Amino acid sequence: SAGSVVLVGAGPGDPGLLTLKALRALNEADVILHDRLVGPGVLALARRDATLIEVGKTGGARSTAQERIHALLLEHARAGRRVVRLKGGDPFVFGRGGEELEFLRANGVAYEVVPGITAALACAAYAGVPLTHRDHAQSVRFVTAHCRDSLDTLDWHALAQERQTLAVYMGVAGLETLRERLLAHGRAAATPFALVENGSRESQRVVLGTLGQLPDVANTHKVCTPALLILGEVAALAGALHWYGAPP
Amino acid sequence: SAGSVVLVGAGPGDPGLLTLKALRALNEADVILHDRLVGPGVLALARRDATLIEVGKTGGARSTAQERIHALLLEHARAGRRVVRLKGGDPFVFGRGGEELEFLRANGVAYEVVPGITAALACAAYAGVPLTHRDHAQSVRFVTAHCRDSLDTLDWHALAQERQTLAVYMGVAGLETLRERLLAHGRAAATPFALVENGSRESQRVVLGTLGQLPDVANTHKVCTPALLILGEVAALAGALHWYGAPP
Repeated sequence: SAGSVVLVGAGPGDPGLLTLKALRALNEADVILHDRLVGPGVLALARRDATLIEVGKTGGARSTAQERIHALLLEHARAGRRVVRLKGGDPFVFGRGGEELEFLRANGVAYEVVPGITAALACAAYAGVPLTHRDHAQSVRFVTAHCRDSLDTLDWHALAQERQTLAVYMGVAGLETLRERLLAHGRAAATPFALVENGSRESQRVVLGTLGQLPDVANTHKVCTPALLILGEVAALAGALHWYGAPP
Repeated sequence: SAGSVVLVGAGPGDPGLLTLKALRALNEADVILHDRLVGPGVLALARRDATLIEVGKTGGARSTAQERIHALLLEHARAGRRVVRLKGGDPFVFGRGGEELEFLRANGVAYEVVPGITAALACAAYAGVPLTHRDHAQSVRFVTAHCRDSLDTLDWHALAQERQTLAVYMGVAGLETLRERLLAHGRAAATPFALVENGSRESQRVVLGTLGQLPDVANTHKVCTPALLILGEVAALAGALHWYGAPP
């Protein structure tokens, strides 16, 4: 029979944040191509006889070329296997999920998509930071600051507006540039942030501060990847609303 | 023993998009206070002897005052019950989850938060629209257009920027205003949109068009609530990448 691919969002690491559909897809897969950041607890839900292939593409580490991922998807699907392409978070938020589907469609491979809990939602929930709030933020924006390129193409004037929440998916390395540009475009230095390291995991740490202190606070606490930055008036609520792990 | 509240995101309606943690919370709850939009398939996962209380607050229908929700949460938690506050989508995205936690914290009630698949993630996955894409969109922004007030306080200059995706949580009524203001602030009339009605449900419908045609296309197809608008260059990909339900 014809093989197929299910593009699955694995969420932020905690297997409890997988969806029921994602669990079912993992249970049924013959082959699982997974990002490096997908945790062992999630991979443990695969069938014992499933083939697990790491195709990790994470900041800093050497990445598997996107072309190789495409080739593997095609090879296993054409061999009639049920393939799961398992991505950290949600497959359509900073995940190249779109490019993989374009490739599969062009090659006539059937697919489905299972959304996942993206890092911003997980970190917000576990840090006690509502991303929107009637009194503080009418909208939330997800941006990435992984590299100089992505920083240069962003509309900083728009990002610096008040009463919105920014969820920044990042290498910690981008924090200095982020602070400089937001301040230069008028965001107040007193704007609160919550920097969430290992969000939703047992090792979660939340560091609070203000935009003006951003890289210093992160450096002092030696915050490491994976980390998500929540910047905006709502971030201050973490001080009162935190409930998981150590207080910030 | 002391009662507690778990603030749970129910996702967009399909029980398969619940997280494993949400399922566990539903299985354990004595009392479930749920939004009206939470589907029957999700509520069916509650214990048979659980008390289900609808506290629906959805556009158009008469809403249960937020104060009454607070009072019910407090009453049942103080009676020692395990309470689930079940919200459509994610509790921290346009859900007043923050306000409910502030109230619980002020009253000394213990709580946890379980994130959920918010409508933008679900609709994007099921319509085949990557929210971000290397070639088309570096960021995605969630906004709401439920009422005149929320439309007036948005930063339209920022919303009208290119190469970002807008996911608009809305009453369909806001479409005309949305078009006018985005065009007035320079977004191209040819910007593609995908309007997703009943996203991820069996009755899902996806209507495609361009910003300039927005309310007309929606009117022609009689699109109803719940609907989510995805506006931006990525929306055009739905034509090629759709996989669920009827083609757009």
